[in-house]
Amino acid sequence: MTARSKFTPSCPMPTFDHDMVVLGHGSGGLLTYRLLDQFIFKALHDDAERPAHDGAFLDVSGEMAFTTDSFVVDPIFFPGGNIGDLAINGTVNDLAMCGAIPQTLSLSFILEEGLLMKEFWEILQSIKQACEAAEVKIVTGDTKVVEKGKGDRIFINTTGLGKVHPKANIDSSNIQPGDRVIVSGPLATHGIAILSVREGLSFETNLETDSTSLHDIVLPLLDKYGSDVHLLRDPTRGGVASTLNEICRSSKVGIRLVESALPIENEVKGACEMLGLDPLYVANEGIFLAIVKEQQAESMVQFLRKHDKGRRAVVIGQVTEDDAGRVVLNAAIGGKRVVHMLTGEQLPRIC
Amino acid sequence: MTARSKFTPSCPMPTFDHDMVVLGHGSGGLLTYRLLDQFIFKALHDDAERPAHDGAFLDVSGEMAFTTDSFVVDPIFFPGGNIGDLAINGTVNDLAMCGAIPQTLSLSFILEEGLLMKEFWEILQSIKQACEAAEVKIVTGDTKVVEKGKGDRIFINTTGLGKVHPKANIDSSNIQPGDRVIVSGPLATHGIAILSVREGLSFETNLETDSTSLHDIVLPLLDKYGSDVHLLRDPTRGGVASTLNEICRSSKVGIRLVESALPIENEVKGACEMLGLDPLYVANEGIFLAIVKEQQAESMVQFLRKHDKGRRAVVIGQVTEDDAGRVVLNAAIGGKRVVHMLTGEQLPRIC
Repeated sequence: MTARSKFTPSCPMPTFDHDMVVLGHGSGGLLTYRLLDQFIFKALHDDAERPAHDGAFLDVSGEMAFTTDSFVVDPIFFPGGNIGDLAINGTVNDLAMCGAIPQTLSLSFILEEGLLMKEFWEILQSIKQACEAAEVKIVTGDTKVVEKGKGDRIFINTTGLGKVHPKANIDSSNIQPGDRVIVSGPLATHGIAILSVREGLSFETNLETDSTSLHDIVLPLLDKYGSDVHLLRDPTRGGVASTLNEICRSSKVGIRLVESALPIENEVKGACEMLGLDPLYVANEGIFLAIVKEQQAESMVQFLRKHDKGRRAVVIGQVTEDDAGRVVLNAAIGGKRVVHMLTGEQLPRIC
Repeated sequence: MTARSKFTPSCPMPTFDHDMVVLGHGSGGLLTYRLLDQFIFKALHDDAERPAHDGAFLDVSGEMAFTTDSFVVDPIFFPGGNIGDLAINGTVNDLAMCGAIPQTLSLSFILEEGLLMKEFWEILQSIKQACEAAEVKIVTGDTKVVEKGKGDRIFINTTGLGKVHPKANIDSSNIQPGDRVIVSGPLATHGIAILSVREGLSFETNLETDSTSLHDIVLPLLDKYGSDVHLLRDPTRGGVASTLNEICRSSKVGIRLVESALPIENEVKGACEMLGLDPLYVANEGIFLAIVKEQQAESMVQFLRKHDKGRRAVVIGQVTEDDAGRVVLNAAIGGKRVVHMLTGEQLPRIC
């Protein structure tokens, strides 16, 4: 049971002959070579572990999960994290949601000319720390540079490989009416933390992103409950509402949510009210949804609550035979309403 | 022995309720769902093969190669191809250069608000055709959207996995003095084709990119010559000069090139003279360098020439004990000169 440590001191930046990224850093020539050798590899790797240029070699066997994500979050630094640890945690979590043990990542940067090297260093430090926390290795990468005005400081792609847990059987076809929907923690924290520092919006809050790696809470759950965990999903873009709608569509079941059960921090609730946002649609990064066998649901909640990342775990609803393809909410004030998939764009570039 | 077919007719674009990309297509909600379901998946996949949302499952065993690349080429359409087939071929070739059989790709888009759907459709069609030609499958993906002015129409990341050929032993530590350097075809074609359509530059040429998948020429070479192929590299950004310099640095050998042996099309030579470019530094996409055992070099060249993609294969130099860490050129006009790694940025965003 490990707590997140987001504030371990960073290594000092090495002396480097540019204070910002220039186009030549993407040339494939000397400047690229130096950027890799004296900056990126220096931040990320021990000398013995520097990745090969065109690819890496892996020895693997058995069932693997494979997943990719590009990160374009704006701003790139936000309370509790930055685009670097977000990019690592995001792909680590997608692997965990496949029931896999995260192992190996690729890392690809699209840098905008003019990005400050000290900002890039800070991001690289976060990447390294997030990799250490999730026990994953970056084995291959790529760095491109685009002209000023043709990007937005930094975009990151991470693609991951992990070995599927031997007891995992994560498959939406396993979902049954009666299954319970568990959420591992409070909703909407990441989205509101990002919004709190968006240009043009300012409101007082001490909120930090909940971005964290989830493999260390998910894998013990699979160890103990195996195939009674029917589906795992992290409700990032589009929030819990959109993720549950997707599940209903693909599994042709209904889901009934209980509004009064939804865990939401007071500060998040206040910000959502002020901004006119429904927390069901706001992005999350540090929580997951589990659709689980009815008989084990309460035991799983108790199990998750023993973990630092699952202290607020709770059953928020159940799978139904009626309303197939739909999410329906039992409202706190009585009555019920259909919860649609997010339409339009509520919060662009939240991850 | 297959020829490239770049001009097979495209499927007609489906009716779609937007004629350009909007921010909502990256929301994770309904518009994202529709973009995937009715557009991207429609272009790329048969109904039975649609990729899962958070990741894919693979059954693999043995030694695998793993490689990633982000593509930011400008312009996104150019003579003989576009960013779509370039992104597939680029990662297929990185796998081939590892001596691996390309199998599985992830595909991640960063779209700029305002990209025309008909352009995106054309790119998706090229992706599909390039995947078919290279016999690789896209199994997982991601789509993000950034505001107008924060990207440049479309950036693509592809990350690939392939099984290492059982006879391959690609490792720079295998390089020996006396080894020959083979290039599989003429230099600088891709870079000059891109430049010919760059804004602000216009010169008459019928040149097309040489971008193509190289696994179907590389794998038979490994079948026949196995570990006598010591190293394979595709000289993309930074050109042949930068790639050979990297090899010299990492292997602590010298390389002696013979200028008169370098294959360069007349049209490329003319364009390079006009623009003041050295073809040794211009990017390539459809050729590879092989460092091979001296005694087999001539036989390999004859073997490559039987393949459509290797018709112009030739020995261009050899590995030397002296000049360790350096590439030296025997100039056509007599004398010799050191060929440095590309310094600065000759041609931004060529791939």
